[in-house]
Amino acid sequence: MVTPTVPDGNYRRKTPGAILDWKRNMTASQKILASIDRSSWIRKIFEEGQERKAKYGAANVFDFSLGNPNVEPPIRFKEVLKDLVNNPVPGMHGYMPNAGYLETRTAVADYLKTFNRQDFTPGEIVMTVGASGGLNIVFKTILDPGQEVIIPAPYFVEYNNIIDTHQGVPKIVRTKPDFSLDFDALEEACSEKTKAVLINSPNNPTGKIYDEEELGELGKLLTRYSEKQGAPIYLVSDEPYRKIVYDGFTVPSIFNAYNESFVVTSFSKDLSLPGERIGYAAANPQMTYLKDISQGMVICNRVLGYVNAPALMQRAVTHLLEESVDISIYQKKRDLLCDALGSFGYDFFKPHGTFYLFPRSLEEDDVAFVNVLKEENILTVPGSGFGGPGYFRIAYCVADDVIEGSLPGFERVIKKYR
Amino acid sequence: MVTPTVPDGNYRRKTPGAILDWKRNMTASQKILASIDRSSWIRKIFEEGQERKAKYGAANVFDFSLGNPNVEPPIRFKEVLKDLVNNPVPGMHGYMPNAGYLETRTAVADYLKTFNRQDFTPGEIVMTVGASGGLNIVFKTILDPGQEVIIPAPYFVEYNNIIDTHQGVPKIVRTKPDFSLDFDALEEACSEKTKAVLINSPNNPTGKIYDEEELGELGKLLTRYSEKQGAPIYLVSDEPYRKIVYDGFTVPSIFNAYNESFVVTSFSKDLSLPGERIGYAAANPQMTYLKDISQGMVICNRVLGYVNAPALMQRAVTHLLEESVDISIYQKKRDLLCDALGSFGYDFFKPHGTFYLFPRSLEEDDVAFVNVLKEENILTVPGSGFGGPGYFRIAYCVADDVIEGSLPGFERVIKKYR
Repeated sequence: MVTPTVPDGNYRRKTPGAILDWKRNMTASQKILASIDRSSWIRKIFEEGQERKAKYGAANVFDFSLGNPNVEPPIRFKEVLKDLVNNPVPGMHGYMPNAGYLETRTAVADYLKTFNRQDFTPGEIVMTVGASGGLNIVFKTILDPGQEVIIPAPYFVEYNNIIDTHQGVPKIVRTKPDFSLDFDALEEACSEKTKAVLINSPNNPTGKIYDEEELGELGKLLTRYSEKQGAPIYLVSDEPYRKIVYDGFTVPSIFNAYNESFVVTSFSKDLSLPGERIGYAAANPQMTYLKDISQGMVICNRVLGYVNAPALMQRAVTHLLEESVDISIYQKKRDLLCDALGSFGYDFFKPHGTFYLFPRSLEEDDVAFVNVLKEENILTVPGSGFGGPGYFRIAYCVADDVIEGSLPGFERVIKKYR
Repeated sequence: MVTPTVPDGNYRRKTPGAILDWKRNMTASQKILASIDRSSWIRKIFEEGQERKAKYGAANVFDFSLGNPNVEPPIRFKEVLKDLVNNPVPGMHGYMPNAGYLETRTAVADYLKTFNRQDFTPGEIVMTVGASGGLNIVFKTILDPGQEVIIPAPYFVEYNNIIDTHQGVPKIVRTKPDFSLDFDALEEACSEKTKAVLINSPNNPTGKIYDEEELGELGKLLTRYSEKQGAPIYLVSDEPYRKIVYDGFTVPSIFNAYNESFVVTSFSKDLSLPGERIGYAAANPQMTYLKDISQGMVICNRVLGYVNAPALMQRAVTHLLEESVDISIYQKKRDLLCDALGSFGYDFFKPHGTFYLFPRSLEEDDVAFVNVLKEENILTVPGSGFGGPGYFRIAYCVADDVIEGSLPGFERVIKKYR
């Protein structure tokens, strides 16, 4: 029997004030209501940007707020896609194993062998709905409720949501002033509750690549704590920007640095396909409980409703593992922006990769500073949104015109603070 | 400081017995380890089927175990896809709003208006990664931990996993012998913990369509309990088989029956595109807290790592909402199977739709009975796997040859039980 829990039984009557809020609290999930309220704030920023574009003309507003690649996919992608679609084979849009096509996973395994020491097989690879899909299946596979995932800041804030969905707890740790790993902070954060460390290299929002020495030291630290704990602490590396690197930098292999490791990645940035939701997750073939973990990943791909990565895109990327957009285009944008902002006196770490720049804001309150830039029609994101207060993020995956057009505004702003 | 929790600190040493199991328990999540153990059992059935195919020849094994449509997508789909790929437009593989393209959502809203009374707008529509993606975003939007979702049995078992991921509790209720809704059972199941009822019509595994009168009565029951509770109990209808209906049956509108309702669907079955992961979720425009709920769905599409439904497929289905494969092909298969099994003496509900038949097993233990069928090289799934013990499921989305070839075996088996 159901007992009435409100005096007014008619829930459709829109009574004002407390009752209405109380009722609203019974409609969507508490966490989602909080997200809605938070995202209204972000939407407000976005809408203000749109208003500015309407008022001043789109060409006079310099929008660096979104990480949406502006470079078209490589010609080779378009050719492969046309070839697939113009020569259809029966069943090509049907189900396949939840892990993905064997042919695609074999191609990924062979590709991974070219820059990692491990002998990958298709068994370690799961094709996923982008890198976000990959992160979700990895964390659903490994997390029991209340277990902690250590994340060096600044970081991509969506990580909080992913870990929370799988009932884990994000534990954010500081990095050094050059955004390299701070091992004292990592040691302090390790506890019996630690299940994983999540890194992102090259990093969004800083453009930092963790070097081989750092990763080696991280591997040793995690081996030591895994042994103390009697069970592996996993290292998860989110690497969608692996190919978007400059000045001869390369991203060292996480697999070589530590056995209990995963790589999650996508083709969103390097092939400019973020709308198509195609990526993969790979477990280290030397992982202790490889069989359970890789089966778990496949099950989670199904259980989380992805079921499989989109079929046609799996078929396409099978032939495109060595491809990427022309990285020099992004490097030119980085140089244009860094040379100018540096000459004006902005303080920043020069990115090794990605298409983000993360300079110090000119006042402590990065939200206030972003508003000052907005007065110049320059749209950026406060560092607080990435666990990096006192900084702001410029996503420079935009037309060169946008960068060039913004420079006088950036210069006027820094002059105000002198 | 981390305290050692096992006497033997070296977790890589594979010690046998208890310690090893204990350690295994610390690697993947407890729930996922349980799923792995369960799915080993399913895989065993699958592998036995494969062994039989190897031993007796694929043509002599009659595999009715999987709901993988064997009919090719409509010609019109292939034309639309070719047209899109051969005439690319800039940004067509890039990000769009998390809800999906406005053009696609507008087309879906217009389509929904053709068979529902409500005045849909794109604001109520979220394009999803198949119907599974849609169910996940709806349940993440509405469920707080411990809230219950009532599901009439038999039902698609994946529902349990989806509800559990979002920390809800599935509450399974019986249906009547003809698989219609049992309102006494539904009333008994309603409590202060009830957040939603999840139905699937036409139903997998029974092929049942809930009629207009039943849905009207369900709507009244839920209105009454919502008023008692002071907050809406939602009705979620999973409708991927809406177009796969026979004998002039149609699926009544859930939106007309109850305001606090969602429809989740996909193009997997009616366009034979299950591998491409494209579907949508629609909220009733008359829902009380529509604004919160529809924003929540969009946020959950992002947060759950889908981000958006695959871009190219969104563009394709925009032009294909009225399309479907030739349903008469499935109806012919249903009739072939039903006529023969009926004449042999099998007892079943003749499906209104879907491509499943759910006959009574000839002994109480449906797992044992499925094994008897397997001896005749007929592969089916025990009803227990759908919350319907004492039945078995035949997925007849297979070539006519497979159905015809299986009939002597079905006849021999029923003779054994006489």
